[in-house]
Amino acid sequence: MSVTAALGFRASGVAAGLKSTGAPDVALVVNDGPVSSAAAVFTSNRCKANPVLWSEKAITTGSARAVVLNSGGANCYTGAAGFQIVHETAELAGELLGVGPIDVQVCSTGLIGLLNDKDDLLGGVREAASALSADGGAAASTAIMTTDTVSKQAVRTFEGVTIGGMAKGAGMLAPALATMLVVITTDADLSAADLDAALRTATARSFDRLDSDGCQSTNDTVLLMASGSAEVTPDLAEFTAQLTELCRDLALQLLADAEGADHEIAIETVNAATEEDALAVGRSVARSNLFKCAIFGKDPNWGRILASVGTTDAAFDPADLDVALNGVWVCRNSGPAEDPAGIDLEQRAVSVTIDLKAGKEAATIWTNDLTQAYVHENSAYSS
Amino acid sequence: MSVTAALGFRASGVAAGLKSTGAPDVALVVNDGPVSSAAAVFTSNRCKANPVLWSEKAITTGSARAVVLNSGGANCYTGAAGFQIVHETAELAGELLGVGPIDVQVCSTGLIGLLNDKDDLLGGVREAASALSADGGAAASTAIMTTDTVSKQAVRTFEGVTIGGMAKGAGMLAPALATMLVVITTDADLSAADLDAALRTATARSFDRLDSDGCQSTNDTVLLMASGSAEVTPDLAEFTAQLTELCRDLALQLLADAEGADHEIAIETVNAATEEDALAVGRSVARSNLFKCAIFGKDPNWGRILASVGTTDAAFDPADLDVALNGVWVCRNSGPAEDPAGIDLEQRAVSVTIDLKAGKEAATIWTNDLTQAYVHENSAYSS
Repeated sequence: MSVTAALGFRASGVAAGLKSTGAPDVALVVNDGPVSSAAAVFTSNRCKANPVLWSEKAITTGSARAVVLNSGGANCYTGAAGFQIVHETAELAGELLGVGPIDVQVCSTGLIGLLNDKDDLLGGVREAASALSADGGAAASTAIMTTDTVSKQAVRTFEGVTIGGMAKGAGMLAPALATMLVVITTDADLSAADLDAALRTATARSFDRLDSDGCQSTNDTVLLMASGSAEVTPDLAEFTAQLTELCRDLALQLLADAEGADHEIAIETVNAATEEDALAVGRSVARSNLFKCAIFGKDPNWGRILASVGTTDAAFDPADLDVALNGVWVCRNSGPAEDPAGIDLEQRAVSVTIDLKAGKEAATIWTNDLTQAYVHENSAYSS
Repeated sequence: MSVTAALGFRASGVAAGLKSTGAPDVALVVNDGPVSSAAAVFTSNRCKANPVLWSEKAITTGSARAVVLNSGGANCYTGAAGFQIVHETAELAGELLGVGPIDVQVCSTGLIGLLNDKDDLLGGVREAASALSADGGAAASTAIMTTDTVSKQAVRTFEGVTIGGMAKGAGMLAPALATMLVVITTDADLSAADLDAALRTATARSFDRLDSDGCQSTNDTVLLMASGSAEVTPDLAEFTAQLTELCRDLALQLLADAEGADHEIAIETVNAATEEDALAVGRSVARSNLFKCAIFGKDPNWGRILASVGTTDAAFDPADLDVALNGVWVCRNSGPAEDPAGIDLEQRAVSVTIDLKAGKEAATIWTNDLTQAYVHENSAYSS
């Protein structure tokens, strides 16, 4: 169900010929109201793709009636011609739906530096508009897949309100720079400002803590649309908490489907002086190729963890760090402690705990191991 | 010849049993004077190995009569017992050579979190002291090898002065966190302050611009010792220029021997507002696993370069960047330009040029591609 689980939304997914395989590649999600509040967050990469340049302007109205998403081409680094395609996509979708183009968000994913065939794409938009259905969530979630092996969907209901979402990609990991696209819908009646506040809190504690391979996409977009159909205005704190859980659910689905990965690794930093310190330490370890290779090799090499911690500016005493791998405290006071020999790294889930002994804050970063399959998949495709 | 090319130095390399293979693993380099000026730079990792903790204190005297180096164990994260071994190493070497322990630098490389057998190591120091020879440079350079496939040596002579050096590792790339150890000797008569200034300039423009896999070692050391035997005090600017060239020579030898690498990649950023901007942009690209996988796959994927540039704070217009691969300007004004099809990525040497159009500064960062062999070598060893 995903994006059509909430009342007031229709969706579709069709094959427009952008993918050489003939698989579905254009999705449309429409908000039938009564309200059209929306909020979005985008990649912080300064070299953004054309759909992001369009959508980040359009969302400043606080309203979105529809979003067109295509796979089979990221429309990134395609210059003025690429921006023109985005504009025509929004104009056509708006015309077909009877709304202004400014009310249409656009997302793209696929190869970068490649200009899609405009006629194929616009044909797909027409077909998607005809195929719209209140059961179309699954079809839409399939049409945005690139190297995803499964579609990612999640739904939560509480106090008469439903939130549903779909996602593609694996946060900053995949050929052609990944691209994480997420569309979340709700039938709650909330203002754009409330949606924006909830979405920023939720993404900061979910997608922003997913660092699969350290590479930042040019197209990342998380869009949240509210229809108001449930005629309920939930408590904002409760809505934010539920939205955060839904985002974490989708984020962990992305992590589990990351290309070539053998392990999902949760890096928890505890007793940090600040949350920022905890995040910086976790991200540093998540970006250590040596550590990630060790986990692939099922080698409990805690020294590589400490060496990454040492590259950060976080508050800690370098001689007094503790590290646990899957709950075994292999390092105490920056030296060897419990025997790592018994640690089972066969299973996909791995936990790392780093105790900074510098405060009371904690945070978790999720990452994957670095495998030969990752290198293969990211070197063998033809651009 | 390397470290014994300059007058006034003896060296040796012996097998002490630290390496399970029985290969040479302890090296000793001695400065017979008449002067004993010295300078050193160390890893900026906050979680440093015990030999670094010792040597960075000892070098504050501006004097060093000898350096003991061992492979087969990094003596890192080994706690107080590990520091004690360093201290005893310096004391024994000092006793054998008739100098104070404070005049003995110590460097280690190999696995981290592992305490070497003290008797083996001290036995090696004794044997190395007996084996000292004015032709011992080659033997010393062999004894510091870990996964290096060849020893790295370089010599320069000018105006009656000789500078010689040996190096091991590949800057921040190798099992057990790499470790780059470099010892440089000269028979010039220069003060410790002059050596320090020259060394900091030289390393900033050579080893510091080598970023093979983004992982920062815990043991990196570059030591420069002057004997004064040539009885020449060269012009400091000329000495610094020659030292810089020697360091670049050694750095490129490290790059060429980086584990599992198929390509050496020079990333030059031109027309930057500041040298810092140029370095930040180059380093960002050098740390993009997706870009490095593309080069391994011989795929001229310039979009991954632009996406990495976009993650920096450097001054530039995101819509007006040019990128060349092996001299072909595949991207102009942040869009496709010359056809990448003709670019030959079969050869090991690859050049990337990024034109920021924001100023007049330029800098080059050297890196390697990311290969399946890298992942294999860094996951398959047993810690």
